[in-house]
Amino acid sequence: MSIRTDYTHLYTELEDGVLTLTLNRPEKLNAFTRQMQLDFIAALDAADADDAVRAIIVTGSGRGFCAGADLTREEGGKPFTAGDYMKEGADGLTDYSDTRLRDGGGRLSLRIFECLKPIISACNGAAVGVGVTMQLGMDVRLASTNARYGFVFPRRGIVPEACSSWFLPRLVGIQQALEWAMTGRVFDADEALKGGLVRSVHEPEDLLPAAKALAREIADNTAPVAVALSRQMMWKMLGADHPMEAHKIDSRGIASLGLSDDVAEGVASFLAKRPAEFRDKVSTDMPDYFPWWERREYR
Amino acid sequence: MSIRTDYTHLYTELEDGVLTLTLNRPEKLNAFTRQMQLDFIAALDAADADDAVRAIIVTGSGRGFCAGADLTREEGGKPFTAGDYMKEGADGLTDYSDTRLRDGGGRLSLRIFECLKPIISACNGAAVGVGVTMQLGMDVRLASTNARYGFVFPRRGIVPEACSSWFLPRLVGIQQALEWAMTGRVFDADEALKGGLVRSVHEPEDLLPAAKALAREIADNTAPVAVALSRQMMWKMLGADHPMEAHKIDSRGIASLGLSDDVAEGVASFLAKRPAEFRDKVSTDMPDYFPWWERREYR
Amino acid sequence: MSIRTDYTHLYTELEDGVLTLTLNRPEKLNAFTRQMQLDFIAALDAADADDAVRAIIVTGSGRGFCAGADLTREEGGKPFTAGDYMKEGADGLTDYSDTRLRDGGGRLSLRIFECLKPIISACNGAAVGVGVTMQLGMDVRLASTNARYGFVFPRRGIVPEACSSWFLPRLVGIQQALEWAMTGRVFDADEALKGGLVRSVHEPEDLLPAAKALAREIADNTAPVAVALSRQMMWKMLGADHPMEAHKIDSRGIASLGLSDDVAEGVASFLAKRPAEFRDKVSTDMPDYFPWWERREYR
Repeated sequence: MSIRTDYTHLYTELEDGVLTLTLNRPEKLNAFTRQMQLDFIAALDAADADDAVRAIIVTGSGRGFCAGADLTREEGGKPFTAGDYMKEGADGLTDYSDTRLRDGGGRLSLRIFECLKPIISACNGAAVGVGVTMQLGMDVRLASTNARYGFVFPRRGIVPEACSSWFLPRLVGIQQALEWAMTGRVFDADEALKGGLVRSVHEPEDLLPAAKALAREIADNTAPVAVALSRQMMWKMLGADHPMEAHKIDSRGIASLGLSDDVAEGVASFLAKRPAEFRDKVSTDMPDYFPWWERREYR
Repeated sequence: MSIRTDYTHLYTELEDGVLTLTLNRPEKLNAFTRQMQLDFIAALDAADADDAVRAIIVTGSGRGFCAGADLTREEGGKPFTAGDYMKEGADGLTDYSDTRLRDGGGRLSLRIFECLKPIISACNGAAVGVGVTMQLGMDVRLASTNARYGFVFPRRGIVPEACSSWFLPRLVGIQQALEWAMTGRVFDADEALKGGLVRSVHEPEDLLPAAKALAREIADNTAPVAVALSRQMMWKMLGADHPMEAHKIDSRGIASLGLSDDVAEGVASFLAKRPAEFRDKVSTDMPDYFPWWERREYR
Repeated sequence: MSIRTDYTHLYTELEDGVLTLTLNRPEKLNAFTRQMQLDFIAALDAADADDAVRAIIVTGSGRGFCAGADLTREEGGKPFTAGDYMKEGADGLTDYSDTRLRDGGGRLSLRIFECLKPIISACNGAAVGVGVTMQLGMDVRLASTNARYGFVFPRRGIVPEACSSWFLPRLVGIQQALEWAMTGRVFDADEALKGGLVRSVHEPEDLLPAAKALAREIADNTAPVAVALSRQMMWKMLGADHPMEAHKIDSRGIASLGLSDDVAEGVASFLAKRPAEFRDKVSTDMPDYFPWWERREYR
């Protein structure tokens, strides 16, 4: 196992293809800071560039997952304003088109949206405000029985952020999204499961093993290039107005990857009833039509 | 409690921040008329303009909720044609671009879509045709065990209306939407719950108390401006093609409301562990970027 | 009952308004071929043109439904490449804008998307790869307890196809879609039901009767023109960015069909409490605004 501790508010461990990213301000229930945002984005950049990383698990240190923006940092402060939560240099800006005036949680969500590796959330405790909205763009969410969630924004006088108005209704349906967003209620893992926010609930000691088992299922059986493309296809086509948009990309994918070494291995191993050994790499072997969308600046 | 009875086919009661709007043609199971449409839109206009209204409950008088368009009004008549159901002056029009030739249920649905207050449906009985499609743009739907639903349009030879082809698949998923829309089946509250149309089912005497408890949860704990913005963000982002669209609005919201009195109160009350007292008003304190979309004419 | 056997890799039976389309390469678990694609599209063209067809059921011959692309046809071959799976004449093409270089499963999915009759899947056995993705654009999916599903693409080194990145997240939600698409897991009917892929699971001998009962519910009670329009409205509005798009089409539908013989019969039969006898035909009586969208070429 290799451990990176050169981040400030999180650390990562890589073991056998699975990168665990642990939010690490346990004395503050891992409350979100601009530094945590920058660390998180840097860790995803590193994970995408590292072919040894096949899947990512996100969890929290100590008894919390992430207790939202750190409301206690400034006495009587305004924790959501530009200087504290947004991009450096945003203080005093009022021109909304200025890209420095951008929500910090959203910058992270948009980075997650572009990720090339599967991201699994293992929510071990309190996840409120940006602590839950940061999870919405992850691929699969698992919860401990200790998990607590809250889209508490209207109870603080603020709006939902981190692109959650785009992600949440697509994830849990508009009825459930509205109830959670408009009451600001804090709810437990069972309500999260019933409402479709998480895919399964586990005893605390079983949470990381369950997340790792799912990560292993991907890492042990699939081609990295195919997974990276599949993740992007599923997320990006949520915004497409017609299946024809998928058809155009599918056709390029079938035509291009159909000639790849991975497909030859995938078919040969299937016919021989043996495990496949995929060798194509995300770092060097993505097809020439990738990315097929115009990248939007969020950094 | 204040009661307004200056509508023709409904009345409203305002009690402690919760407005109950009761469809009121009980002898016709509250069948829908052009007058009811106009009354409903006027009542929503009044509710949006009245800061005393924090949430809206919609229910029906007597044993029905709304039995659809009133098919019995004209002997052998054609109840869906322009003169009866659509906008005044629509008779004889064949130019589809003429805004007078507009579905009456859809005009109501589009008004609901723009609403600034949470709308909870308390469905007490039969809700067929426009009686159910008018509920789809409301935020949360509760049902009595007496509720009955039916997208009965294909059994009458007509198409679904009130924008239901946009709302229903987003609410219950495309598979369930198609089964209900293509069979035209009338179904009970249990099927509505299982299919995701309603969020809970209650004994008849418990229906309004349950709806009021949910309304109270919003009214007692949240900031009106934040709720109005949250409602619009969730609904409007259903039509956005990329989370970047949410990010732009989120950023404006965080930057703008982050400096508001409501956020100062929200944070202070949270840290002091006392109830918040939000003072910003929907009528006067919406941020300057609201509305961020181009309003579309439906009246 | 009339049986058409002039297809190569499927056959159809028409009985009392319900067309059963049976994939028919049982010795290969009905593995998908370009010929099957062409046969399927031709059968849907015939069904749409035939007013005697009120609903379509799709099932498989023998113990499989469809085991995906036929990987065994060429020894050591590359079954996804142009010459085998795509449109005739695609071999060697590298210009992605060339419409001959189009995924064969997607061409079928896009044809299903345009269908004017309800399509019910009766999945009797293995449905992997294109065997499951071809079902996603059908309206309602039923499963036998023998059904097995797998979006196995990443286990073969290839990407999901048949527009499944557009259909699957809309059908089962993005969380479930990603888990299935990124693990490539093969799963049983119970997981398919829990995940929302199928609407019900049946004992093998009850599968076709259940599918036929649902088809009968449509055929016996509804107006063909209204059903054809309803199906297209629900599917097409999934891609619309605002309910106003539905309102415009609804208004045309109400104004146009409101004057139709079908509506007169639908209302009269309802008031008389007798079964309706609808006479308007899909072949000749679709309203003049149909189709309201620009048709996109996929053939």
